[in-house]
Amino acid sequence: NKPFIRLQHTSKPALAKLAPLDTFPRRHIGSEGNEVQEMLKQLGVKNIDEMLAKTIPSSIRSPKPLAIGEGIPERQLLTRLKEVASKNKINRSYIGQGYTDTVVPNVILRNVLENPAWYTQYTPYQPEIAQGRLESLLNYQTMISDMTGLPIANASLLDEGTAAAEAMLMAWQAGRRKKNLFVVDENCHPQTIACLKTRAESFNIEVVVADTFHYSFAEHKKSLCGVLLQYPDTRGSVKDYENLTASVHAAGGQVAVATDLMALTLLKSPGEFGADMALGNSQRFGVPMGFGGPHAAFFACKDEHKRRMPGRLIGVSKDAAGDNAYRLALQTREQHIRREKATSNICTAQALLANMAAMYTVYHGPEGIKAIAQRINNLTSVLAEGIRKAGHTIENDGNFFDTLSIKVGNSSSILQKAAAVGINLRAIDNGTIGVTLDEAVTQDELSKLIDVFQKDGAPAVSVEELSAVLEQNVSTFPNQLQRTSAYLQHPVFNSYHSETEMLRYIHHLESKDLSLVHSMIALGSCTMKLNATTEMIPVTWPEFSNIHPFAPVDQSEGYLTMLNELSDDLKEITGFEGVSLQPNSGAQGEYAGLRVIRAYHHARGDEQRNVCLIPISAHGTNPASAAMSGMDVVIVQCDNDGNLDMEDLKAKAKKHKDRLAAVMITYPSTFGMFEAGVSEACKVVHENGGLVYLDGANLNAQIGLTKPAEIGADVCHMNLHKTFCIPHGGGGPGMGPIACTKELEPYLPGHPVIACGGQNAIGPISAAPYGSASILPISWAYIKMMGGEGLTQATRLAILNANYMANRLGEHYEILYTNENGMCGHEFIVDIRPFVENGIEAIDVAKRLQDYGFHSPTMSWPVTNTLMIEPTESESKAELDRFCEAMISIRGEIQQVIDGKLPKGDNMLNSAPHSIKTLMADKWDRPYSREVAAFPMPYLREKKFWPSISRIDDAYGDRMELFMLLSMQTSQLSPTPS
Amino acid sequence: NKPFIRLQHTSKPALAKLAPLDTFPRRHIGSEGNEVQEMLKQLGVKNIDEMLAKTIPSSIRSPKPLAIGEGIPERQLLTRLKEVASKNKINRSYIGQGYTDTVVPNVILRNVLENPAWYTQYTPYQPEIAQGRLESLLNYQTMISDMTGLPIANASLLDEGTAAAEAMLMAWQAGRRKKNLFVVDENCHPQTIACLKTRAESFNIEVVVADTFHYSFAEHKKSLCGVLLQYPDTRGSVKDYENLTASVHAAGGQVAVATDLMALTLLKSPGEFGADMALGNSQRFGVPMGFGGPHAAFFACKDEHKRRMPGRLIGVSKDAAGDNAYRLALQTREQHIRREKATSNICTAQALLANMAAMYTVYHGPEGIKAIAQRINNLTSVLAEGIRKAGHTIENDGNFFDTLSIKVGNSSSILQKAAAVGINLRAIDNGTIGVTLDEAVTQDELSKLIDVFQKDGAPAVSVEELSAVLEQNVSTFPNQLQRTSAYLQHPVFNSYHSETEMLRYIHHLESKDLSLVHSMIALGSCTMKLNATTEMIPVTWPEFSNIHPFAPVDQSEGYLTMLNELSDDLKEITGFEGVSLQPNSGAQGEYAGLRVIRAYHHARGDEQRNVCLIPISAHGTNPASAAMSGMDVVIVQCDNDGNLDMEDLKAKAKKHKDRLAAVMITYPSTFGMFEAGVSEACKVVHENGGLVYLDGANLNAQIGLTKPAEIGADVCHMNLHKTFCIPHGGGGPGMGPIACTKELEPYLPGHPVIACGGQNAIGPISAAPYGSASILPISWAYIKMMGGEGLTQATRLAILNANYMANRLGEHYEILYTNENGMCGHEFIVDIRPFVENGIEAIDVAKRLQDYGFHSPTMSWPVTNTLMIEPTESESKAELDRFCEAMISIRGEIQQVIDGKLPKGDNMLNSAPHSIKTLMADKWDRPYSREVAAFPMPYLREKKFWPSISRIDDAYGDRMELFMLLSMQTSQLSPTPS
Ligand SMILES: Cc1ncc(COP(=O)(O)O)c(C=O)c1O
Ligand SMILES: Cc1ncc(COP(=O)(O)O)c(C=O)c1O
Ligand SMILES: O=C([O-])O
Repeated sequence: NKPFIRLQHTSKPALAKLAPLDTFPRRHIGSEGNEVQEMLKQLGVKNIDEMLAKTIPSSIRSPKPLAIGEGIPERQLLTRLKEVASKNKINRSYIGQGYTDTVVPNVILRNVLENPAWYTQYTPYQPEIAQGRLESLLNYQTMISDMTGLPIANASLLDEGTAAAEAMLMAWQAGRRKKNLFVVDENCHPQTIACLKTRAESFNIEVVVADTFHYSFAEHKKSLCGVLLQYPDTRGSVKDYENLTASVHAAGGQVAVATDLMALTLLKSPGEFGADMALGNSQRFGVPMGFGGPHAAFFACKDEHKRRMPGRLIGVSKDAAGDNAYRLALQTREQHIRREKATSNICTAQALLANMAAMYTVYHGPEGIKAIAQRINNLTSVLAEGIRKAGHTIENDGNFFDTLSIKVGNSSSILQKAAAVGINLRAIDNGTIGVTLDEAVTQDELSKLIDVFQKDGAPAVSVEELSAVLEQNVSTFPNQLQRTSAYLQHPVFNSYHSETEMLRYIHHLESKDLSLVHSMIALGSCTMKLNATTEMIPVTWPEFSNIHPFAPVDQSEGYLTMLNELSDDLKEITGFEGVSLQPNSGAQGEYAGLRVIRAYHHARGDEQRNVCLIPISAHGTNPASAAMSGMDVVIVQCDNDGNLDMEDLKAKAKKHKDRLAAVMITYPSTFGMFEAGVSEACKVVHENGGLVYLDGANLNAQIGLTKPAEIGADVCHMNLHKTFCIPHGGGGPGMGPIACTKELEPYLPGHPVIACGGQNAIGPISAAPYGSASILPISWAYIKMMGGEGLTQATRLAILNANYMANRLGEHYEILYTNENGMCGHEFIVDIRPFVENGIEAIDVAKRLQDYGFHSPTMSWPVTNTLMIEPTESESKAELDRFCEAMISIRGEIQQVIDGKLPKGDNMLNSAPHSIKTLMADKWDRPYSREVAAFPMPYLREKKFWPSISRIDDAYGDRMELFMLLSMQTSQLSPTPS
Repeated sequence: NKPFIRLQHTSKPALAKLAPLDTFPRRHIGSEGNEVQEMLKQLGVKNIDEMLAKTIPSSIRSPKPLAIGEGIPERQLLTRLKEVASKNKINRSYIGQGYTDTVVPNVILRNVLENPAWYTQYTPYQPEIAQGRLESLLNYQTMISDMTGLPIANASLLDEGTAAAEAMLMAWQAGRRKKNLFVVDENCHPQTIACLKTRAESFNIEVVVADTFHYSFAEHKKSLCGVLLQYPDTRGSVKDYENLTASVHAAGGQVAVATDLMALTLLKSPGEFGADMALGNSQRFGVPMGFGGPHAAFFACKDEHKRRMPGRLIGVSKDAAGDNAYRLALQTREQHIRREKATSNICTAQALLANMAAMYTVYHGPEGIKAIAQRINNLTSVLAEGIRKAGHTIENDGNFFDTLSIKVGNSSSILQKAAAVGINLRAIDNGTIGVTLDEAVTQDELSKLIDVFQKDGAPAVSVEELSAVLEQNVSTFPNQLQRTSAYLQHPVFNSYHSETEMLRYIHHLESKDLSLVHSMIALGSCTMKLNATTEMIPVTWPEFSNIHPFAPVDQSEGYLTMLNELSDDLKEITGFEGVSLQPNSGAQGEYAGLRVIRAYHHARGDEQRNVCLIPISAHGTNPASAAMSGMDVVIVQCDNDGNLDMEDLKAKAKKHKDRLAAVMITYPSTFGMFEAGVSEACKVVHENGGLVYLDGANLNAQIGLTKPAEIGADVCHMNLHKTFCIPHGGGGPGMGPIACTKELEPYLPGHPVIACGGQNAIGPISAAPYGSASILPISWAYIKMMGGEGLTQATRLAILNANYMANRLGEHYEILYTNENGMCGHEFIVDIRPFVENGIEAIDVAKRLQDYGFHSPTMSWPVTNTLMIEPTESESKAELDRFCEAMISIRGEIQQVIDGKLPKGDNMLNSAPHSIKTLMADKWDRPYSREVAAFPMPYLREKKFWPSISRIDDAYGDRMELFMLLSMQTSQLSPTPS
């Protein structure tokens, strides 16, 4: 019988009897009362404080409780947030510039974006229990490849700005990192140019913004690595880039094209005119604007660049039974990140939004999307006609798709007129106004918009009259740019066009994927905790969804209030004084933080400070981010206990004293340890002139107990998609804001369109000023509902749960790296290496866990052939016990192999997982029974998640290198070569 | 390649190029273009018109197209409805009277109410693919039984008013229908009393409303069948009914208690003080008020009454493998409806809402709910103290739970003051105001409420001060009424209290249930069509959810606008002039319609007209409704073709000429036929003084092609949960509004609290004026989005789909009852009787279909050992083909049995369905292979829904008679007796 954790205080006991009961901490935290007692008993401690004393160095414990108010009950929270949200003014935005309104099909909204079975998924590293989203992401890749006319596309990047930076770096790498000139067309989106510049600077790439039609590439043959064009460009022009592309190629450069998927349904594709790469935002394919994000950026390239492809790539392979199957083509944890040699650090991307865009494509099909694009173009033609009639000049008349740049003389009166009727236009420059139309525009809206451009007192013109222009059937862009090639011919884009079929397709894919709706996902370093419904509900409120990131700031008061409150809470939690909400992933946070450190040193004239110390155990993104920040990575060793080797650190800090820029430490460490030496490490680095970057991926183990600032750090990022309840979405979205000291605050990233960041802001590191703003209500709500005490209790339980499990499993497996009291932090590592000689590796245990209904813990990271387990506070003791019992049962199975009762190589571990098809085959000739394979524990007969395929054949997939949808016939894949 | 069905017209082709593309008909209708052509080809007709000419008598074809406007695109529809909804004013309602605000746990809102995998389920007649909702409904029954202290509870009734009527009729039946006095306490809810009176009248039961404490039951021993009490009563009093109950019993009567689940957590249960039945509304257990519905009414009774239990009852049994399993205890189609002897006709109930209430209980557990109730009681105590201090008298001081009746002198000034601050109170009578508190009340709201009662100029009193009253710990009701008995001790109510656990429990149950998210559910007479997301979204908008049904009418302008528009559209569709939106199921519609007919005859002095002709083929609810309306049912035969036997009809109409009240016909007939003689039948009945009731269950085959009024009917009901897209919710909610001629309109049902209905309105037949109002936006949206042409196209496709399937299957099975052109209507019947001699019955085909991933069509109704198939327009040709191929493959399996290749009684049909457990058992000794059992068609390897148990053992369940949750141990069920 569970007593509530009420966490509501009042000095008046009578008033307490009126306190609301829909308190959140007891819903968020999995165990209470008796269960906590039982776990403490297992650990042989009296209470949580005693456990913590054995776990966390007392020197870094926070002196005061978190100054975050009492938890707000769930219902009041939503009332409060609705009030805040209502302060946003939802104008009709025709600003364009990479973001437009879109008609989100409600069947996708409800069944993907609002569905925990989709949004609580993890990145599909375990393909046997992730075929659904792998198929959907492959649909996405196929769609991108079709539309761009390029053979290889990845499964999403963070935003168009960073995608452009990735293209630049791909070009730079293609030039063997020797050619440092990158030319950007002046009519690329301003935020894209700004992101490029930020990224270029630390690689010493020279970005030249130019009129590329009048740029002499031949003259720069030696230094030119590439060019970025935009198609249609930011002012709406649709230009023929074929000759331009040829001349860039002649000069040895690569051509990257920032483009628009909707336009490409009517326009010749970049691939067809010779582009090497294409990129852009898939937002307008059914993903709300959300004040800037999250949306999926896309990236496609020629085959010759595929080894340099940033981000995740889905591939086709076979399973052990020989059936077609999908997988992450770069299978092990973020191997595409090249650590010290990296030009990209992308890890968390935008999987959920890529899935939405893919589903939008599946629902509409090639003709549906083309019709939408044609209608947008028709609307634009009629608008153009109205504007002509009103006597204005259209700068790009005769070459537009959906965007007009209009010469209006003095813009301000038109902008005012627009504002008065709730319309946002783009003020390109003093005499020029931009208008971008979208599929949601109605005839009435068009009419209202045309009115805005009428001269005062002129008689109103009707859309009906103006639409006569459409009868002439003239193309609004050069004829040679008409698309003639086919796209989206695969059956998947031609089968699910009724809502019933669409619903079933979504649900069918969903049914193949294990997510938090099924069982715990104890991924070390990933903090797969509850993504509560009350946190998620506001994400799809129109007040947050339907606002353009570059809307005038007086329209986003609701957002700004929420963002400020969130920043304040994050400051209190980290102990820092500045916060930037711009980075839209943890890796982006690292990069932003290091760039801020760099800016700080440079401002002090310490331009030589470019050595970054990184422990050998660090996540791959750390060295990658350092490299991308122009730093030299120097590795610091760890000792046998998994702790930083203090002597090595001191030696290296001293050695590089004059050039020391920073150290990057993860705390608790990537081994899950509260290293006692952390403050000393910070001190050493400070003493040698460096600053301390704290990777906050493991912040869930700190909140309320200690703070990055108290530990001695100068800046840290927070993975809001780990600690602060943004769901993982199958590989994104995420958010990685950074917090820093007062000294670093002036350098926090800015933005070219919307003022934000510090006084000496570095350039933007994301395309939107506040990253993926529309998911920030999740973290805001989590903090507000938990309150200071609830947050602290969550940390306490996260650590208790980990230690409880470590203790139970410690009786059966070796646990790596516990401290001198035998304690771990919020996660721990189980060693599988002792069984390798018996043919059992970590992957076999991971796959066998699927047969027990569980997702594998983090596999072979940070140590090969181990499993790292992080339960989080949200899992109940009952679930922890089920997981432990599965692991213990597996240990028994291993023992049978060790004892020779089952053959090495042919047992339920090596052959795991067991799919339904395998288990129901008429033939069964394995040395263990079907029932042992299928139901190794009794609870599985009542409740089990089934892997939909047998074990993936990675070697085969690597050989095949197929990254697009095939026709559904198996015959398209050749039989496994022997 | 599918062309769109745009259905948007405009005489200007250029303007058409700007028409919106998110048109709904092409999403709602499963097939288009080529697929339609292929189906027509199969039928050997050139176009749909030719097919219709062969299907529907030309005499009844509508002369004009539907005068319903163009279909509104999806996005505009929601914009438009939001505007309408915003006209509702959401005040804080303390009106009580059976409806209160509630804190709906968001995890339940999103994952049950907003989840198509729950809301598109059908009634769980196929237990092997419905164990999830069966468990949840059993949770509901268990909860009701626990709270009321009575051993038998059903799985929901429609509303509290009709539940009270059911109790009265149970008492009446217990008195062998001979004792006709039913006494109702004067402090029952007014709408309950009114519903009772309506229902009593046609049974000639005398309802006496009295002060039951001062009523001499002993004096009425001969006639007294029962008494209805309310506990707490409508004015809030909590009285000790123990002695009263004893005296009713002594006088031979039954005691029914209308009660409140929340109060029962603190109060002695009705069962404990001797009540025979208990009933009420479970709305406040986590179901929004929704302007009156839908919510689940509950009903519990003593064991001796269980054979008279109305509605559906979930029971415990075993499956073929001997495992515990749940099922509908009265398994075959509505056998609990006793046709001509019926006192109840309930069929569609409130399953989805019962599930919500059950989940609310699971989430909170016994202590959680008790804490909520105690807090409500605390709030009420503080309010009482404030009111006392303000100098008012509380009528029920010393005996209240959550409701106070306050003597205020002149109420109007207080009511005005309340209204001014957005508060609704109950005006009980001129000097008395009622206030009912609920779990959502905050301290601020309480304070605001207390202020309303302050005398002008009096100093404000704070809640804090007033709450001192709680320190005295005095009970607010008589001490002997304190609850001491335990409740909700079953593990299911004590395990899922964190959101993560709750989410997984909901999802686990969901995963066992086949719904429209998986495959077509071709249930004849049930019209399982798409329940589109855009239709469903408004249901959970606060503007529709959070409004009390008895709120002042000026607060429900949005609702009234929407209801009027819906009524107008339904008039156009039926050709009638009056509509009542009150009946909240089809059966309630029938009852309402017949009562209106009865009132019409009575008003003309034709009181003797009480014969109702009903075809032998009619749905069980028809004779039941007639009997409940005080009519004598006379059966009319059908001929060998399934048509009404016109000679028999004429003869019987003539014979009963003087007493003829009505005929009830279903059109198309329950055999799915457009009977040619329908107009003549109507004429015959009219000529003999009767009126025509048309059962509109099959209206989906009429819309746009013909109309009930044109056919010759006088009144009809419409199952909005069939034809008009309200989802079936696993057995409700539904809506069964009626439409009628101008002559009948004056009698449309009224309501005692909210004025509605005709000028000479019959009494209410539902507790709320507009039935389950909050789901009416679904039908409103469907009609508006389809437009007249879209609706007509839907009918055409529904008929085409049925004929296509009948034609394909006709090559393999006998199709019963096609017309002279070989055509059926929107459904058709497949005959399984020829195979009975081979041991194959309809149930075997039904269960084997589960192995093919399909829900069975309607089984053995209207003809034993047949399957009735209704595809609806929403299914694609691809899905129709999959279903046909499954049926054809099954026919092949039957042939193997006929040919002796498989033994009679031991084959894949008789042993179907095959659960995963069975198929993976180590032992397999059946005469067919595992793979044949599991994957009889190739597509099943890719996509299959798995039955979670083997075939249910109905005989065992009937013997066991267990209707509550057992502890989870199998041991609690004794082994199958031999
Ligand atoms: C320790 C650590 N640092 C950084 C990251 C990168 O975060 P993101 O995936 O949000 O870019 C991760 C992600 O797993 C991590 O575990
Ligand atoms: C022909 C017919 N009439 C009446 C009904 C009863 O409708 P409801 O279940 O909504 O009460 C049904 C339900 O299946 C039916 O098929
Ligand atoms: O890699 C992660 O998504 O955490």
